[in-house]
Amino acid sequence: MRMVDIIDKKRNGGELTKEEIQTFVDGVVSGEIPDYQTSAFLMATYFKDMTDAERSELTMAMMKSGDHLDLSSIPGMKVDKHSTGGVGDKTSIPLAPIVAALGIPVPMISGRGLGHTGGTLDKLEAIPGYQVEISEDAFIEQVKDKGLAIVGATGNIAPADKKIYALRDVTDTVDSIPLIASSIMSKKIASGTDALVIDVKTGAGAFMKTLDDSRELAKALVGIGKGVGMDCMAIISDMNQPLGNAIGNALEIKESIDLLKGEAPADITDLVLTLGSHMVVMSGKAKTLDEARAMCEKTIADGSALKKFGDMVEAQGGDRSVIDHPEIMPQAKYKIPLPAKANGVVSKVEADEMGIASMLLGGGRQKADDKLDYAVGIMMNKKVGDTVKEGDTLLTIYSNREDVEDIKQRLYDNIEISDSAEPFTLIHETVR
Amino acid sequence: MRMVDIIDKKRNGGELTKEEIQTFVDGVVSGEIPDYQTSAFLMATYFKDMTDAERSELTMAMMKSGDHLDLSSIPGMKVDKHSTGGVGDKTSIPLAPIVAALGIPVPMISGRGLGHTGGTLDKLEAIPGYQVEISEDAFIEQVKDKGLAIVGATGNIAPADKKIYALRDVTDTVDSIPLIASSIMSKKIASGTDALVIDVKTGAGAFMKTLDDSRELAKALVGIGKGVGMDCMAIISDMNQPLGNAIGNALEIKESIDLLKGEAPADITDLVLTLGSHMVVMSGKAKTLDEARAMCEKTIADGSALKKFGDMVEAQGGDRSVIDHPEIMPQAKYKIPLPAKANGVVSKVEADEMGIASMLLGGGRQKADDKLDYAVGIMMNKKVGDTVKEGDTLLTIYSNREDVEDIKQRLYDNIEISDSAEPFTLIHETVR
Repeated sequence: MRMVDIIDKKRNGGELTKEEIQTFVDGVVSGEIPDYQTSAFLMATYFKDMTDAERSELTMAMMKSGDHLDLSSIPGMKVDKHSTGGVGDKTSIPLAPIVAALGIPVPMISGRGLGHTGGTLDKLEAIPGYQVEISEDAFIEQVKDKGLAIVGATGNIAPADKKIYALRDVTDTVDSIPLIASSIMSKKIASGTDALVIDVKTGAGAFMKTLDDSRELAKALVGIGKGVGMDCMAIISDMNQPLGNAIGNALEIKESIDLLKGEAPADITDLVLTLGSHMVVMSGKAKTLDEARAMCEKTIADGSALKKFGDMVEAQGGDRSVIDHPEIMPQAKYKIPLPAKANGVVSKVEADEMGIASMLLGGGRQKADDKLDYAVGIMMNKKVGDTVKEGDTLLTIYSNREDVEDIKQRLYDNIEISDSAEPFTLIHETVR
Repeated sequence: MRMVDIIDKKRNGGELTKEEIQTFVDGVVSGEIPDYQTSAFLMATYFKDMTDAERSELTMAMMKSGDHLDLSSIPGMKVDKHSTGGVGDKTSIPLAPIVAALGIPVPMISGRGLGHTGGTLDKLEAIPGYQVEISEDAFIEQVKDKGLAIVGATGNIAPADKKIYALRDVTDTVDSIPLIASSIMSKKIASGTDALVIDVKTGAGAFMKTLDDSRELAKALVGIGKGVGMDCMAIISDMNQPLGNAIGNALEIKESIDLLKGEAPADITDLVLTLGSHMVVMSGKAKTLDEARAMCEKTIADGSALKKFGDMVEAQGGDRSVIDHPEIMPQAKYKIPLPAKANGVVSKVEADEMGIASMLLGGGRQKADDKLDYAVGIMMNKKVGDTVKEGDTLLTIYSNREDVEDIKQRLYDNIEISDSAEPFTLIHETVR
C-alpha cells in the first residue's frame, strides 16, 4: 500500500479503509511516510473531509500509537469533561470536586495553555505546592482514596497526534473538523475515561466562531465517541465574552473557590452546574438533569464540594488553606481600574482580546517556554448587558508593572458601550 | 512573508500576488521552504486552481530560477513546437526539417521518454553517431549554419520546476492544470523561442483523457504564453490510437524519413503539415494556413525537407545515409505478425497499451536509467476503421526475443474488432 495512493483516494473523495488509515498513522509514527506526503494528505482531508467511520478509525489509530491509561482498578463509572478552550474558562477546577463529592470518581488529565486561553494545570500551579506532574500509579491511588485528581499527562499519549499536530500548524490544516476532532478524541480515549461530556465553545473568543461550525465540531466529537463505543455528549456554550469575571491564574483559582462557596458569577456557576448535571446523569447516579443539578447544588450548599477541593489540593502537595486565604497565592502589585468613558449598556466584551491582555501582562504564554506570572490578569467589573455610567469601573487590571497604558488601550478598543445590548445566551445547544 | 500565510491565502481561494509567488519559488529553490509546506501548497492549488495572472507569474518565476537560452544571435523569428506526448508521436523529427527548409530557423530542445511515451532524443539516437548533447554555442552555430538542430537541454533549466515536479509525483498533485501548464511553459520560455505551437493530445493514450480536460490545458498553456508576451497557439489532436503506424525508436525514425519522402500514413502526415502550417504562419512567412500548407507540402515534393533532415543528422555527427538505408539502424531479430481472430472492422486500438507493449519489448524505459533497445517496437498494419478478415495481420511485433506470448496477449486485449467503428477525427480543435 503506497502513501501516494492513499492521498489519491482521499483527494478524489473516497472513503479510506481501516487498513489505509492504519498504514498512514503507522508510517507517520515510524517516520516511513515523509512529512511532505503527510501534509499533502492533511490538505486533501481539509478539502474532502472524512466520514464518521474514517474519523473513528483515525482516532483509534492515533490513540493506539501511544500509551493507554488503564483506570479499571478504580471502581465505578469514570466520567470526564473536555472543553475546546476559552478565556476565563476555569470550569474543570470547581467541576471535579462537585462531581467527586457525589461519589463519582474524577480522574482528570488536563493541559497547559499556549496563547490567550490558559490551561487548567497552569491555574492550579498558582496554589503554593500544588504538583500536577505525578506518576500514573499515584494518580490512580489518589482517585481511589480521595475521589479526584487533576494532573498532567504522563507517558507517551498519542504520539501520532503530536507529529500530525505539529505539521498542521505550519501547513495551514489546523481548522479541519475531522483533524480537530480526532486529535481531541484520541487523547481523551487514551486517558481511560468511560464517558465524556464535551463543552464546545462558540463565538469571537472561541476556535469556532460561528454556531454552525461549533455544532459541526460537537457532532464530530460525539460521533467519534459513539463510533468507538464511548458514552459521549456535548453542549455548545458561549465564548463571545469571558466566562466568569476572573482572567488570570490565581484570580481564576479564587473564582473557582468562590464558586464552591456559592459566591461566583451566575454564568460560570450555571455552566459548571450544567456540565456537572450531565456528568452525574451519565454516571447513572441520577435519572434526570433536574435531579442531577439539585445534587450538584447540594454539594455547594453543604460544603462537601469545597472539602473535596481541599482534599485534592492537599493530596497533590498544595496548601489547602488557600480556601480561606487566597492571598497565599501570588498577588499583583498594582490594581488599576479601567473607567468607562461613556454612559450606556455594555454591548460587547471581546473575549480573546481580554485573554491577550492578560497574556501580555504575563499571565499567559506567547512561546512554549515562557514563565508565567500567576498574580496578574483581569477582573471584569461589568459584563455584556450591564448598565454603566461614565467613570464606572469596567474592569480591574492586576499587574506587576505600573505602566499599563498599552493594555488599557487594547481593552478600551475591545469593549463596546451602546444604547442597548443583545440578550446573552450562555448555553446554545446540546448535541448527543 | 510567511509561507503558511501564502498557503492559507491559496487554500481560501485568494489570488496570490507576484511577490507571494516569487517568495514561494525562491524558497523552494533555496530550500528555505520545507517540502511539507510546498506539498500542502501544491494540494491547495490542486483544489483552488490559479488565475491567469498567477499562472503567468508562477511560470516566469520558475523560468527565472535557472538558465535562459539567448537565441537573439540567430536571425529571424524562432518558432518552436511542443507536444504533451503520445504513443507514436514522432512529429518533431519530420516537422523541424520541413519548417527549416522554408528558411525559418528551428532551434529545438527536446526530451527523453519515461514510460510508454518515448522521447524525441531517444528516437534520434537510433541513428548511428547522432549526438543530442552538444554545447549551447555549437547548438546556436548549427542553427545559424544549417537552419535547424534537435538537441537535449544544456544548463540548469527551471530548477524550481524540477524540485516541484519531484514533489508533485509523490504527493498526488501531478494532474493540476496550473501546475502542469506552468511546468511546461517555464521550460519552453527558458529555451528562448519567440513563438510556440502546442500540440495537446487527447484520448485514452494521452495524459488528458477527455476533450474538456484537453481544452482546459490548451487554454492554460496559451493563456500563460500570452500572459508573458509570447505568440502562442494550440491544437488538440487525437491520441486514442497510436499516431502513424510505427512505435519504437528506429521504426519511428524510418517513418519520419518516409514522411519526408511523401510515403508516410495519412494521420501523421496530416498532423505534421497542420503543425508546420501554423509555425509558418506564425513566423510571418505565409499569410494564410492554406498558403503555408502548400509551402510545407512543396518541401516534401521537392526533396528540400529531406535534404534538411540529412544536413541536421550529419551536423550532429550522425550517418545521413540512413535516409536511403534505414537498415543501418539497429534491426530486430524477430518480426512476429499478430493475426486477427475475427472478421470485422477495427473499432479500438488502445494507444497507451501499444506503447506499454513496445516498452516491455525494450523500446521504452520503466526506470530512468533503463537502456533502450532501438530496434524493437510495433508496426500497426491496421488502424481504427480498417476492415479485417480473420488471419489478417493486425500489427507486427519487432522483437529481439523469440517468445512474445505475454506481449501478444496484451495486444489482443487492447484491440477491438466490431461490426463498425466510430468515425476518426485527428484534429479536434484549435485554441488561440
